[in-house]
Amino acid sequence: MRIAMISPLEMRVPPIAYGGTELVVSLLTEELVRRGHDVTLFASGDSVTDAKLVSVCPHFLRGSGRDAGILTMLNVVSCLEQADKFDIIHNHTCFEGLATAGLIKTPMLTTLHGDLKGDWLELFSYYKGWYNTISRSAKLLLPDKERFAGVIYNSIDVNSYPFNDSIREPTLLFLSRISHEKGPHLAVEVAKKSRRKLIIAGNVHPVDEEYFRTMVMPGVDGDQIQYVGEADYHRKRELLAQAYCLLAPITWQEPFGLYFIEAMACGTPVVVFNRGSAPEVVKHGETGFVVNTLDEMVDTIDHVHQIDRRRCRQHVEERFDVPRMADDYLIAYKGVLSGTCDIRNQGLAAFDRSLESTVELSLDAPASDRMTRMAKSSKN
Amino acid sequence: MRIAMISPLEMRVPPIAYGGTELVVSLLTEELVRRGHDVTLFASGDSVTDAKLVSVCPHFLRGSGRDAGILTMLNVVSCLEQADKFDIIHNHTCFEGLATAGLIKTPMLTTLHGDLKGDWLELFSYYKGWYNTISRSAKLLLPDKERFAGVIYNSIDVNSYPFNDSIREPTLLFLSRISHEKGPHLAVEVAKKSRRKLIIAGNVHPVDEEYFRTMVMPGVDGDQIQYVGEADYHRKRELLAQAYCLLAPITWQEPFGLYFIEAMACGTPVVVFNRGSAPEVVKHGETGFVVNTLDEMVDTIDHVHQIDRRRCRQHVEERFDVPRMADDYLIAYKGVLSGTCDIRNQGLAAFDRSLESTVELSLDAPASDRMTRMAKSSKN
Repeated sequence: MRIAMISPLEMRVPPIAYGGTELVVSLLTEELVRRGHDVTLFASGDSVTDAKLVSVCPHFLRGSGRDAGILTMLNVVSCLEQADKFDIIHNHTCFEGLATAGLIKTPMLTTLHGDLKGDWLELFSYYKGWYNTISRSAKLLLPDKERFAGVIYNSIDVNSYPFNDSIREPTLLFLSRISHEKGPHLAVEVAKKSRRKLIIAGNVHPVDEEYFRTMVMPGVDGDQIQYVGEADYHRKRELLAQAYCLLAPITWQEPFGLYFIEAMACGTPVVVFNRGSAPEVVKHGETGFVVNTLDEMVDTIDHVHQIDRRRCRQHVEERFDVPRMADDYLIAYKGVLSGTCDIRNQGLAAFDRSLESTVELSLDAPASDRMTRMAKSSKN
Repeated sequence: MRIAMISPLEMRVPPIAYGGTELVVSLLTEELVRRGHDVTLFASGDSVTDAKLVSVCPHFLRGSGRDAGILTMLNVVSCLEQADKFDIIHNHTCFEGLATAGLIKTPMLTTLHGDLKGDWLELFSYYKGWYNTISRSAKLLLPDKERFAGVIYNSIDVNSYPFNDSIREPTLLFLSRISHEKGPHLAVEVAKKSRRKLIIAGNVHPVDEEYFRTMVMPGVDGDQIQYVGEADYHRKRELLAQAYCLLAPITWQEPFGLYFIEAMACGTPVVVFNRGSAPEVVKHGETGFVVNTLDEMVDTIDHVHQIDRRRCRQHVEERFDVPRMADDYLIAYKGVLSGTCDIRNQGLAAFDRSLESTVELSLDAPASDRMTRMAKSSKN
């Protein structure tokens, strides 16, 4: 299949450190090339790929001061202008691809990596191509619209993550972008209330510096609560593998937590708020705990040792490894090309299984009830 | 001719008060309809036009909190998706039209209303359509690029401006958007140094509020220096007609000062810094003064009474009335459609005359020399 893959330009493909979308784009692109597909990747010029690389800028844009709006649009248009060379265009940008799909004949599949609000929903309604979401939760937040190609969960290269069956000390880990929506300030609170050590790792965008300074740093004492900066490729794996659990006190409907599956791949359970994709990705009581309140999160910490770290790894191997994601996208591509894409009838691996595995969590259920259920499920 | 006219959405067409681009779009659109052309106007839904109106939003966007980037792109794309219905697409947006022209077969002419810097120049280089500038100065600031359709000066409906041959008191007027580039803080300084009254009228964008508060308002005393807010259609004409002169101490390369020709239409001379289009639009010594320094501007005020206010009106009637602009655009459209558009050989009215009329001003010439030249030229 002749596939055009359009990446954002914020980060090179694959990313040096933070850059979830660019990581997924890279894993999918390389897997499709490996399977013999003719893939052209539209990404920053410093990207590393076995696909054909087409670039409108030599370097990724984060920190460059360059106009991301202009360059991302040029990246999309440089693809669309040669649209007839491709069977399908797989777009991972948001605004730029959604706006322009109606101007070309080649079908476009857009993966919605983020959430859409306000006038972004108008743009989405206007969009003329196909789309997929990266979780059922993300789909539920969208208005109904035809040309839905299904839920296709993200993946990681599981083998690149070290598995650790036993940990030396019960240190909590927060590892993600430092921003209010990711909730590191709540992670500090959980650590203090549970009297455990917490390591915070992650990058701070300029827009979040004020938040970091006023809401997170006051809790950092360099002993019980430590901030270690942004973790690179190796440091991230080391931190994840050595953690007692990953804390994810998210305050938003996270469409997919790539760091959840990175943690579980290392054997590390995930304790996460019941928002967005969390109950689809983390198997409650099996690979972590999906909780409703901060107090519940604190209470849950004591149960983390009951989680089998091998089960965490196995869960990611089964459902969030690259070949499964590539299978799913190839099914979606074929559905888009035949114009009959109805993902529920085509047995996308992850979609069906997630229906069975999702624990039904009620935000109204009293914490005591839920703790009982947790205790039960962790004994099974 | 089947013409698609794409407007920005910041303001309705025509604008209620401030909105220079939307005003020019309106004047051109209505004149082309009057001449029997089949014009479709892509603009906000509250626009008033005899053309066919197509809208992606019911109201103009300024102050609405809506996402102008998304809606302007949808406005452009809603036109481009039916591009084959038009002989030519005349685009007055910047980013959105420049980026997408290569995706359609119908030729596009983009009028560059603003200036282009940084990555905007990259976008411009990428652009696949034709373009025109609204002054020679604006053209000189651009890199060389093929498909230049010429300089076409903006125009106003001269008859809608009252001509005033004599003024009651020698009050200076600043009338434009309140921003550093328009220089109202320098107008205050000129008024104080020349000990004359100054009326400041104009809207303040949220981004310029700090500038307004700290750089302009401290000089406003409500007596010698007055700020009267944004002037609507009638109030603007009243202020312009009653002014001794318009002060335009611009600090940027203004591509075209629509308010210069509005003032001159009322008979009011323009005293302006020698930047951007100023020497092309204002005839030095004949319809105002084009000066190089603040002190020169102060000294010049005493010579303003030597300017013949009838000559100011006549200058605008001859060169900046709507029929001339429509003639020029129709010549450009035909040139674009035949692919042989070379404006210099086609005798666009304003372009050739501007070559004759522009006073050669040197920023290095001593003020004394220049004052002598001014005195001479005002005696002729």
